[in-house]
Amino acid sequence: MQSLSIQRLLDEFERLPGIGPKSAQRIAYWLLNASEQEAQRLADAIVEVKQAVHFCPCCFNYAEDDLCAICSSNERSAAMICVVSEPRDITAIERTGEYNGLYHVLGGAISPIDGIGPDSLTVKQLITRLADATISEVILATNPNVEGETTAIYLARLIKPLGIKVTRLASGLPVGGDLEFADEITLGRAIESRREL
Amino acid sequence: MQSLSIQRLLDEFERLPGIGPKSAQRIAYWLLNASEQEAQRLADAIVEVKQAVHFCPCCFNYAEDDLCAICSSNERSAAMICVVSEPRDITAIERTGEYNGLYHVLGGAISPIDGIGPDSLTVKQLITRLADATISEVILATNPNVEGETTAIYLARLIKPLGIKVTRLASGLPVGGDLEFADEITLGRAIESRREL
Repeated sequence: MQSLSIQRLLDEFERLPGIGPKSAQRIAYWLLNASEQEAQRLADAIVEVKQAVHFCPCCFNYAEDDLCAICSSNERSAAMICVVSEPRDITAIERTGEYNGLYHVLGGAISPIDGIGPDSLTVKQLITRLADATISEVILATNPNVEGETTAIYLARLIKPLGIKVTRLASGLPVGGDLEFADEITLGRAIESRREL
Repeated sequence: MQSLSIQRLLDEFERLPGIGPKSAQRIAYWLLNASEQEAQRLADAIVEVKQAVHFCPCCFNYAEDDLCAICSSNERSAAMICVVSEPRDITAIERTGEYNGLYHVLGGAISPIDGIGPDSLTVKQLITRLADATISEVILATNPNVEGETTAIYLARLIKPLGIKVTRLASGLPVGGDLEFADEITLGRAIESRREL
């Protein structure tokens, strides 16, 4: 007894990550109550992002202009490249405000089980970028899981012979966390990488 | 360093109910990875629902045709009208499969504090519908809160003199709930309205 177009809207929203039937319904009824302009703005934003955004040909981050905002910035240090799996990882690192170099998005991580090898990633393009003499350090910021570690080890072996410093994000206890609730592998890493004060 | 159109999409999604910055980002990255067709389908569904859906002139439910799907159905009993505050309440009652009559959406509940009186609601239209001789029972299914109860008492006083049976949804313990966790008002109602077995 549900209107067809409401049902279609519910179906479309339920396909989005983290949106279940209840959330979809809440959003649908919010939209039905909202002004036509508000609904149009949301629809436009969805269509425009797909039209405007493409991959940066240099670092493979999302970009609107020829190069992404980071590659085309004059304020970023060109001496460091931080290698990440996905564009969303750049957002996470940018939020820290701790990094001012460039990025390189691999587009995934090495995972033989899923058939993802170095050729499926932007590894070749990274190596080409490293031929540029200005780069003195590569930070491997792939995820601290099996695929991310495998990718980091693979890249380190490839990059070190080029005479470039290769680093990896530190593993350890999350700030504000409890020793009690840390898993043994994380705690083990934290002990292994302990710092002198 | 975020692309402008991605930022706009995030802003638009964060305006939706139940969507915070993290959920908005998750959806935005999902959309960036999705095909252009998928994004277009979502945008179309949003625009179309606003264009296609209006209020049913009879019961004030959302409708796509002249009348809503329930008012125009031949399979519904025209002897009963269930009065609800919002169209979403119809969806909730329809899900139970326990009711086969018609509905009337008030468009809110009486709330003097918010300046909502009977004139702001579709009370007049309800009374006009009740002039139809076929209606033998009105179920008042406004919410079991102060505004809903006030509205129900007001409507009961208005409808009873017309010689129509007026009923209210039962209050009591939620099925599957624990006595221990029931609030005292709900438990009090459950005792008051106890049934003989």
